[in-house]
Amino acid sequence: MDLAGVDVLAFDVFGTVVDWHSSVAAEVTELGLPVDGSRFALAWRARYAPTLRRVAAGELGWAPLDELHRIMLEECLDEFGVHELDEEQKRHLTGAWHRLRPWPDSVEGLTRLKRRYVISTLSNGNIGLLTRMAKHAGLPWDCILSAENFQRYKPDPATYLGVGRVFGVEPSRVLMVAAHHDDLEGARSHGLLTAYVERPLEFGPDGKDVSPEPATTLHVRDLRDLADRLGC
Amino acid sequence: MDLAGVDVLAFDVFGTVVDWHSSVAAEVTELGLPVDGSRFALAWRARYAPTLRRVAAGELGWAPLDELHRIMLEECLDEFGVHELDEEQKRHLTGAWHRLRPWPDSVEGLTRLKRRYVISTLSNGNIGLLTRMAKHAGLPWDCILSAENFQRYKPDPATYLGVGRVFGVEPSRVLMVAAHHDDLEGARSHGLLTAYVERPLEFGPDGKDVSPEPATTLHVRDLRDLADRLGC
Repeated sequence: MDLAGVDVLAFDVFGTVVDWHSSVAAEVTELGLPVDGSRFALAWRARYAPTLRRVAAGELGWAPLDELHRIMLEECLDEFGVHELDEEQKRHLTGAWHRLRPWPDSVEGLTRLKRRYVISTLSNGNIGLLTRMAKHAGLPWDCILSAENFQRYKPDPATYLGVGRVFGVEPSRVLMVAAHHDDLEGARSHGLLTAYVERPLEFGPDGKDVSPEPATTLHVRDLRDLADRLGC
Repeated sequence: MDLAGVDVLAFDVFGTVVDWHSSVAAEVTELGLPVDGSRFALAWRARYAPTLRRVAAGELGWAPLDELHRIMLEECLDEFGVHELDEEQKRHLTGAWHRLRPWPDSVEGLTRLKRRYVISTLSNGNIGLLTRMAKHAGLPWDCILSAENFQRYKPDPATYLGVGRVFGVEPSRVLMVAAHHDDLEGARSHGLLTAYVERPLEFGPDGKDVSPEPATTLHVRDLRDLADRLGC
């Protein structure tokens, strides 16, 4: 737990840095879909983990998340009985994941952390998605690293270990930052340090459990708090 | 030659965005090597193309450029009869390629171009090298793309075609920017648009030929000029 040796911060993005729930819900509503935007966003996201597991199991070939988001969208439209979207509208709605809004502390927190550390994404989002999101949201990444770099989705070890390899440092000099304990557990099991970020509104106003996990190196409220804790 | 459709600018880096010659020469001199810094820098760089050709031919396995730089450094030290460097000094000197200085127009030019376009590297430098260089030099990339992403060095088609694939656009919507006609020829042969940047001092004060190549989409003096020509 030697935070003094940390050189690289690797960030989960969906939920940790950006608010996918309210952003996607708003786009669904703006497009005039005859559904509850929040419920649709939750249903779309609920298909994420099982779909990635199908890729990991080899049932689906490797595909960038943009393509998987489109497959999941079609499934959700069927589930909600929505049949009136044309190709252009479906493409636009899939692009909602490129336009997610940052949490209010994200840009300031990252900007402060960037002064001292290499700040990189380590997300299952594809490189193009993460790059366009960063431009849209003003996220000042030093580097975009993605499951796409390793052709493996988190929690595959290649992703966590890949960060240190890319930057030429031991895993213990990488701090993985995420709002999800399972992501941090994956990182920790391969020797990375971990920071848990509370994001109680990730799934909407009903809230989520943000209890600490004792194995976590740091437990922080948000990215400003992380910058404070790391003296940035 | 439809510049209006361009969405992504992909930049060669060594020589195009940063001045490797004077930067490496200065580090060689600062380290107190009993050699002419400029001649040593030129000799080191002269081993670059043949070494990458050995990787392309399968004589050397894939390795990130940091490792190849170290191999080439050992060869140059032998060539110049320098035997007094210890491991730490060799590692530091190999890191000189992480600390290359930008040309005087690069940061301003990129900052202006970034307002309208996705600006990405497409360099044979590895991701870690390019990321640390960008932090050191203040280069505001949206994305770091490298030969490492494709496990192939330029001019392998996978590199040029990879940019469009990553960003989900046709090759004709990518403008490759480089100070080397052979790099642009590789890009053009796979459907990318091309911009040649004059860098007459790339190899030092003796200058280099910066004559236009008619097949190039744009021929510009520097990155400020490129921003002017693209209306940024």
